[in-house]
Amino acid sequence: MDTFVVVGGDAAGMSAASKAKRDDPDLDVVVFERGEWVSYGACGLPYYVKGEIQSLTDLVSVTPEEFREERDIDLRTGHDVVAIDPDDRTVTARNDDGEVVQTYDHLLVATGAAAVTPPIAGLDREGVYTLGSMADGKDLREYVGRAREHRDLQQPDRGPACQFLETCTGPVGVVGGGYIGVEMAEALAANDFEVHLFQRGGRILKSFSEATSEAVLDHLDEQDVAVYLHAEVEELAGGERVEAVVTAEERVPVEMVLVGTGVRPRTALAEEAGIELGETGAIATDAYCETNLPNVYAAGDCAEADHVVTGDPVHVPLALTANRRGRAVGQTVAGERTEGGGVAGTAAVKAFDVEAARTGILDHETARAAGFDPLTRTIDANSRAGYYPEGGTVRVTLTVDRPSGRVLGGSLVSEYGEGAVHRSHALVGAVTEGVTVADLANYDLAYAPPFNTTWDPVLTAAKVVEGER
Amino acid sequence: MDTFVVVGGDAAGMSAASKAKRDDPDLDVVVFERGEWVSYGACGLPYYVKGEIQSLTDLVSVTPEEFREERDIDLRTGHDVVAIDPDDRTVTARNDDGEVVQTYDHLLVATGAAAVTPPIAGLDREGVYTLGSMADGKDLREYVGRAREHRDLQQPDRGPACQFLETCTGPVGVVGGGYIGVEMAEALAANDFEVHLFQRGGRILKSFSEATSEAVLDHLDEQDVAVYLHAEVEELAGGERVEAVVTAEERVPVEMVLVGTGVRPRTALAEEAGIELGETGAIATDAYCETNLPNVYAAGDCAEADHVVTGDPVHVPLALTANRRGRAVGQTVAGERTEGGGVAGTAAVKAFDVEAARTGILDHETARAAGFDPLTRTIDANSRAGYYPEGGTVRVTLTVDRPSGRVLGGSLVSEYGEGAVHRSHALVGAVTEGVTVADLANYDLAYAPPFNTTWDPVLTAAKVVEGER
Repeated sequence: MDTFVVVGGDAAGMSAASKAKRDDPDLDVVVFERGEWVSYGACGLPYYVKGEIQSLTDLVSVTPEEFREERDIDLRTGHDVVAIDPDDRTVTARNDDGEVVQTYDHLLVATGAAAVTPPIAGLDREGVYTLGSMADGKDLREYVGRAREHRDLQQPDRGPACQFLETCTGPVGVVGGGYIGVEMAEALAANDFEVHLFQRGGRILKSFSEATSEAVLDHLDEQDVAVYLHAEVEELAGGERVEAVVTAEERVPVEMVLVGTGVRPRTALAEEAGIELGETGAIATDAYCETNLPNVYAAGDCAEADHVVTGDPVHVPLALTANRRGRAVGQTVAGERTEGGGVAGTAAVKAFDVEAARTGILDHETARAAGFDPLTRTIDANSRAGYYPEGGTVRVTLTVDRPSGRVLGGSLVSEYGEGAVHRSHALVGAVTEGVTVADLANYDLAYAPPFNTTWDPVLTAAKVVEGER
Repeated sequence: MDTFVVVGGDAAGMSAASKAKRDDPDLDVVVFERGEWVSYGACGLPYYVKGEIQSLTDLVSVTPEEFREERDIDLRTGHDVVAIDPDDRTVTARNDDGEVVQTYDHLLVATGAAAVTPPIAGLDREGVYTLGSMADGKDLREYVGRAREHRDLQQPDRGPACQFLETCTGPVGVVGGGYIGVEMAEALAANDFEVHLFQRGGRILKSFSEATSEAVLDHLDEQDVAVYLHAEVEELAGGERVEAVVTAEERVPVEMVLVGTGVRPRTALAEEAGIELGETGAIATDAYCETNLPNVYAAGDCAEADHVVTGDPVHVPLALTANRRGRAVGQTVAGERTEGGGVAGTAAVKAFDVEAARTGILDHETARAAGFDPLTRTIDANSRAGYYPEGGTVRVTLTVDRPSGRVLGGSLVSEYGEGAVHRSHALVGAVTEGVTVADLANYDLAYAPPFNTTWDPVLTAAKVVEGER
């Protein structure tokens, strides 16, 4: 009876464990998780902080008890794996009672990613938060809750001013203009904070198209979020508690700061065991998610995956990839060798009342490095029949290889509910299958007046690009 | 200087005329249109009748004046083409002043489709409507308007009962459970009519999957639309005016009836000129929309197009195909020979508060005739992260070829706004490109909690089908 050991109990780890045990009930499946939470939806944390989700446990899709009792998985929370010995085929885990050594026949490293610590002074001041874990989410929600309570107490008709908190109602800072930064700007603004967002580069959501970034930036402006571009934060100044965000140009007083400057793969454990990393700094894997060590797999935010357009390994730490590749490892371990699938780098984000999605290769430098001659065009089109009472605008950016016409990537943005995200599904397929923009323009996409113009905006964009290339 | 003559001034005809003139301004482009309206959105008529669109002219995307003045197209409305002479390369058109004969170098037949006249007695009674033209829409809207006015006058505080109309507030009948029937049921119910819908077969929306039909049927029931299945209408009974819908089983009193039992291609003109029809009864064309006669094209609702899955000619009279293939003809005539593209049979419909879409081959008999061994499965999945405050259910049906795993077709239904229609875009690509369900399951579709579960419902369906085939 083989033993399958999984290090890390979130998306990739628990998907692998569940699939392996379901497909081969004779397998012993042991999962070591450092914390107490497993299989949680970290993507939901901004909405928990916002107050739209009432309990952290709502984010947990399957509880530890369910994994243990219903799925018969030996899940050991509170166990920090400190070493992998590939020669003895063991892992060593430390918990409150000491160390345990567990042998494995198959091993999955699913250690995830950690928030990047940017080179900013004062990150350790009180009132500085990140959003990498359930504990972070809990802290932030408590901060927001206290602030709201404080404000209520400040109301003239609610009695004397709050005595127990000095600072919790003023402006707040968000460092980083990626998904987390944008989602947290919404979450904080929804709780009546004055939000200041600092982005190092020249645009927010830099993995999306420039046109998408601009549309979202305009919308943040409409929502009274102050966005600072080309704003490298040097210091989070203050005393014990943070009091200001300091850049080369500005000193913006704040009472709280959320730092969301991306994540890096957690690879120390793997490296010490001799598992090779790729050029991206994440764990290198083959099509079956196998590392350089026999019977050792890696999946999820700690690992690379091949891009469907370039074929090159990339590090795209997102939930679906983790689930999918984890599941594939589980299936392989259970006896059916299964490829983990590539990534298109697809991502979606809601920012207040707009939605955006991107997929494939948009960046010209990346496209050229892969041997393409990129051409990018952006169009605006009605989201529904012009005469239909509801509707808005979908902005579509397409990047294609000029000589071949192959669709390399796309980016869409629309009002929330006008379908930029779901409409991107057409482009994910095109990018994955290597479809030309001329063929894409001929796709028989669904049309009816409440959903679309006769030509879906993606088709219109394809026609325009085909005409210009 | 060549002359391009177009017969029929709606989607296919005006797309062809516009594209040809834009690409080759030296071309003489002459369009004959029997009626007064051109380039109108017939798909919008139910929403006009419903009252969500205020004016019929709102449905017109480009006016006759704009075609004439801005696009320099010789558009002749009120001209009924009565003959094509392929030897002399002329068409003969009749208008109020007599007949004109026009020579052509290239000819497009875009005569559209007409409402089917089902074998039902009493179709000529007053109060029986169809919805095939702008004039039909106008009549129906007037009926609805009068009925509403009548009802208002019946209010105790609004004075004496309406004297000028005998019948306009009672139950109404809809014959046919396709798009038009379902959309008109919504339009009439929204105007407080008691709606009775009669469907000859065992389910409504029969081109969709059975699971989709059931979901929409359940919803119509919730909305108090009385749906009669296996209900072949024999007679629309009454005196001068319709008074009841009569089937073998029932006699349902009504004060108005909308007959929406499909359309048939208008081919008489083409047939008389020696243009060959295909097995579907629509005009046969090749990949370039050419008929058997030299320099004579056909596009839109009067013509066939090849199905992307089977490669066989089909007759799918929908707006996008008409626009796309018309545009291709225009481009060809202007000198750049362009294929019209195939059809996937994609369709979308809104029915009250649900939306549905379908694409590809769902019918097992059709699949088998094309050499496939079809397998169909349906799943229900959350439309968004389970913890997200909004959301509903997406029901996905996939039909695949069991041995190869190729995706043949799909059908989706969800609450309105939960994305069944836009999510179908992923399936249109899969069906068009001949993707296997295993590869589809690996698509990197966009995910964020406000839009999706980690696995889009389409991916979940693909996983399930792949596991079972």
